Amino acid sequence: MVLSPIVYILASRLVEKRFNKVADEPEFDTVEESNPVIIAGFGRFGQIVGRVLRMKGIGFTALEHDPAHVNVVRKFGNKIYYGDASRVDLLHAAGAEEATLFVLAIDNVESSIHTAEIVRTHFPKLKIVARARNREHYFRLKELGIENIIRETFYSGLEAARISLKHLGDSPTSASIAVNYFRDSDLQLIEEQFEHFHDQDAMIAKSKRASQQLSEAFTKDTSPT
Amino acid sequence: MVLSPIVYILASRLVEKRFNKVADEPEFDTVEESNPVIIAGFGRFGQIVGRVLRMKGIGFTALEHDPAHVNVVRKFGNKIYYGDASRVDLLHAAGAEEATLFVLAIDNVESSIHTAEIVRTHFPKLKIVARARNREHYFRLKELGIENIIRETFYSGLEAARISLKHLGDSPTSASIAVNYFRDSDLQLIEEQFEHFHDQDAMIAKSKRASQQLSEAFTKDTSPT
Repeated sequence: MVLSPIVYILASRLVEKRFNKVADEPEFDTVEESNPVIIAGFGRFGQIVGRVLRMKGIGFTALEHDPAHVNVVRKFGNKIYYGDASRVDLLHAAGAEEATLFVLAIDNVESSIHTAEIVRTHFPKLKIVARARNREHYFRLKELGIENIIRETFYSGLEAARISLKHLGDSPTSASIAVNYFRDSDLQLIEEQFEHFHDQDAMIAKSKRASQQLSEAFTKDTSPT
Repeated sequence: MVLSPIVYILASRLVEKRFNKVADEPEFDTVEESNPVIIAGFGRFGQIVGRVLRMKGIGFTALEHDPAHVNVVRKFGNKIYYGDASRVDLLHAAGAEEATLFVLAIDNVESSIHTAEIVRTHFPKLKIVARARNREHYFRLKELGIENIIRETFYSGLEAARISLKHLGDSPTSASIAVNYFRDSDLQLIEEQFEHFHDQDAMIAKSKRASQQLSEAFTKDTSPT
């Protein structure tokens, strides 16, 4: 296959940009404080947790691996360390030994899993609250023994459903009841699906059955007797 | 700049793959039903809305632009149309004229904005509930006159904050009060920031001020008198 000149130029630029990015990466910051909470990954998800903690006056150490993102966050006046949260020396420097909570808010699935493995191995007593991209990521985190895992778009999807039901004529109470019912059923379903994590056919069968039964169960459980 | 052979081969494959992808794309499906709700984008977010509606027995037409994703969704027994929700003919076929609600759940920011523009222009009376990737996407949707916009990781971030506060010693009630307070403040902040959408310095100043004041306001508003 022959590349046309314009495609060649575009591809060269892409490659050039990648190489330059690696060459330009600054040195990791030295962490010089220790706080009750460590937040790994200070993107859209980690920042919400950090801002709630700040409101409550609870100290946290935020670690972020993307230098461009670190600059943006700093512009908004937030303290943040540029570093790789899967490095044991950095975790020690951040006080992982004495911390109360580790918030694993890294968006990339493989980096998240790698960091989770490191934390579980070197700081087995440290409590973890983790962000998951999807069900598969959720199951992989759960296999590592993490108990509190939140799918990153799940609760916003529920909020969209709640608003949608209101537009479709439900009262606020009725919309909330339906959405909470669905939420609890789905949180139970994902726990049950975990048993079939390595058997896709069984997982699909389980999902189909659950979906068919849910409507009936909801009507039965929420109708006035 | 000269590309080394291996980089050239990799770049060629990348380009080849892209071209083949276009060549392999199947024809769009013909939509043959009309429902009170149209869901554009049936990924992690749109599916949650769809599954809540199904539980409630409310009909919806799901449109998805990624053929690989359509196949996965069908495997799980869901009905879904392969098509581009920004095409006016497809929207007419899906009954956009008579529909009650349009759920804009497309993840790609530019596709989302483009679809929003088309729907606003051709079906100005159709109510829209929209998913936003981040604040900027939120502001661009708002500029188009969309009222109900949900940031896709915001509510899951809040849930992670709530669980974190409980691990740090808060009672369930106290954790919920704090998180709801933060949520309401942030929903108000984003509305105020919208005025400075095209002035980044003003927006940053506003964010910094809000962050400094929030902790104080929270303590004042939630302390027993």
